Amino acid sequence: MEKQSGHEELYNIRRAKKTDCEEIVGMIRGMAVEENMEDQFKMTAEVLMKDGFESDPPCFSSFVAETKKGNEVVAYTIFVMQYSTWNGKIIYLEDVFVKQNHRNRGLATKLIQKVNEFSVKTGCQQFRLACLNWNKNAMRLYKNLGCRDLTEEEQWHMLRFDNDVMHNMYKESKHAEKN
Amino acid sequence: MEKQSGHEELYNIRRAKKTDCEEIVGMIRGMAVEENMEDQFKMTAEVLMKDGFESDPPCFSSFVAETKKGNEVVAYTIFVMQYSTWNGKIIYLEDVFVKQNHRNRGLATKLIQKVNEFSVKTGCQQFRLACLNWNKNAMRLYKNLGCRDLTEEEQWHMLRFDNDVMHNMYKESKHAEKN
Repeated sequence: MEKQSGHEELYNIRRAKKTDCEEIVGMIRGMAVEENMEDQFKMTAEVLMKDGFESDPPCFSSFVAETKKGNEVVAYTIFVMQYSTWNGKIIYLEDVFVKQNHRNRGLATKLIQKVNEFSVKTGCQQFRLACLNWNKNAMRLYKNLGCRDLTEEEQWHMLRFDNDVMHNMYKESKHAEKN
Repeated sequence: MEKQSGHEELYNIRRAKKTDCEEIVGMIRGMAVEENMEDQFKMTAEVLMKDGFESDPPCFSSFVAETKKGNEVVAYTIFVMQYSTWNGKIIYLEDVFVKQNHRNRGLATKLIQKVNEFSVKTGCQQFRLACLNWNKNAMRLYKNLGCRDLTEEEQWHMLRFDNDVMHNMYKESKHAEKN
């Protein structure tokens, strides 16, 4: 578990604003680098601004942590509303990330608690997320907070059609319709 | 791969309507039973109607397949818009299900293609889903369509905070704030 005491007074947790997007994109890139997946990173501050702050409804929600001294944004979380056909409305946490020199101060826990508070207040029945199994620190944090590993327990696997496959499938299905 | 020829003329694929909810909930229950997880099933037609057809924005989108003769709804899919911080807007497929006596006629493929068409047209960059690894028929179908297994390839695990854990976490974080 992250240490949680003594550092609360250093940070504010608040809703992300449009003007935070440059800083958030920098952290998203930082996470992609740490996960050895920088090649999959294609985000820009402009797209993040448009999708999160100019679209109606917004494509995602976000909280950030900033230092009380100097107002530096040092951590963020991004999440969306999802739907379980067995339970109803649920939350899906896409990302939580803390800059390296602000770690071990309970900020990831605080951001997860903040998203959880939002989930409970909006009547969400579950709070889902995904984690790389080799990321032992993240796994430990989530499990200490009471998270279940459904891949281990029930054999759920995460699957994905990538963009090129989607476009091929689209072409093929259009072609089949014509014949 | 499912057989795909010769049966197209038997079914229509269309957007689900509010009046389909009774039928869809029956199929959701059918899927929970087949996955040996009926204990996790808590949905009712009333909740599905409210969340999908009376909320603004709706909590999910849905297509159904119905027989041209008799207009029986025999398959459904439910999906939501999600967000990748590396790629932007994406689609998450929550469910696809076909009634037993209408299987092996390409209906699951047709519904996935329909969701894929929606994804491409709305500029979604990925199409994610989850599958139980022991459900070999479903796994084969998705992989034949070009789906990648990210749990196998990259060690992604699916995690979840259940409702009781969410409420405990909420109480604890409220309590910590007061002290």
